[in-house]
Amino acid sequence: MLDELIRRNRSYRRFHQEVSISCETLRELVDLARLSASGANRQPLKYFLSCDPQRNALIFPHLAWAGYLSDWPGPVEGERPSAYILILCDTQISKSAGIDHGIASQSILLGAAEKGLGGCIIASVQRDALRQALGIDSRYEILHVLALGRPKETVIIEPVGPEGDIKYWRDAEGVHHVPKRSLDELIIG
Amino acid sequence: MLDELIRRNRSYRRFHQEVSISCETLRELVDLARLSASGANRQPLKYFLSCDPQRNALIFPHLAWAGYLSDWPGPVEGERPSAYILILCDTQISKSAGIDHGIASQSILLGAAEKGLGGCIIASVQRDALRQALGIDSRYEILHVLALGRPKETVIIEPVGPEGDIKYWRDAEGVHHVPKRSLDELIIG
Repeated sequence: MLDELIRRNRSYRRFHQEVSISCETLRELVDLARLSASGANRQPLKYFLSCDPQRNALIFPHLAWAGYLSDWPGPVEGERPSAYILILCDTQISKSAGIDHGIASQSILLGAAEKGLGGCIIASVQRDALRQALGIDSRYEILHVLALGRPKETVIIEPVGPEGDIKYWRDAEGVHHVPKRSLDELIIG
Repeated sequence: MLDELIRRNRSYRRFHQEVSISCETLRELVDLARLSASGANRQPLKYFLSCDPQRNALIFPHLAWAGYLSDWPGPVEGERPSAYILILCDTQISKSAGIDHGIASQSILLGAAEKGLGGCIIASVQRDALRQALGIDSRYEILHVLALGRPKETVIIEPVGPEGDIKYWRDAEGVHHVPKRSLDELIIG
């Protein structure tokens, strides 16, 4: 069951933008993160939610998409995320979130997959400009942005080829291919 | 469903040590991590497995347990983990794993919870000594250790009290209490 959910939980970058996601849904997803592990139980993560087109439009220009697809500037209008969750570190609680935002992101994205949604962890963010656009206090460090929506693309996992290239790529039909290393390559002892 | 799994997936530190976990089970758990997101799809994480008492005994002395329980040195013989997964960064692939090991750990621990197992992410590790004990090449940076077993303790989530203390604690019956911040405290916008 979890295996199926994890396989379904691909990194999606094109969405049915017209399918909205309520802020209540985003709160349910954050609650999954809230109940997940946190280093020394410090819980320094805070969350900034966006579920409406106006706020989404303030966020989108500050994100970079799919580094390996150099001729693709990101999703066009109509295929953009319908919601975002910004994951922040409350520096009054801790200067570093350790790996808490990795744990939290996986909980949120698995929860999204369960709801028929999908998303992408975006680390390439113009943080200062985004902070300014949203009026986020400097107390909060922007760690990364989760883009969310109803996926509008097919993503296929395939084995890494003999030349070892792990770059994802898109074929002529727009299908997104993601090479994954084999289990035997990952286990060293 | 995922909500139930995430609630069940507490950080456990005492186990039915006599209940063994096969290396095949560990491989299934690592496969969940393999299929999870990785920054720029680099997949630098590698895994070192331990599923037998001899290898477990080489690992246990190099771990520190439950920082807030200062009078508890860790699980006694009979209540120790029956397996471990060491998460490593292959520095020939990438100098940093980013938050990949947070994502991977959550996949593995949710998979463990689904199998009726439980575990704990241990970051307080004597890394050099552990590397030497297990003969792990210096190419691999030890990021953290997942301790796994059949849980032998009750862990309860409760709201953080008015004084804001987030330290977990154990009551006279040995029940482990974990204060979690409220959803309203976590969402700042």
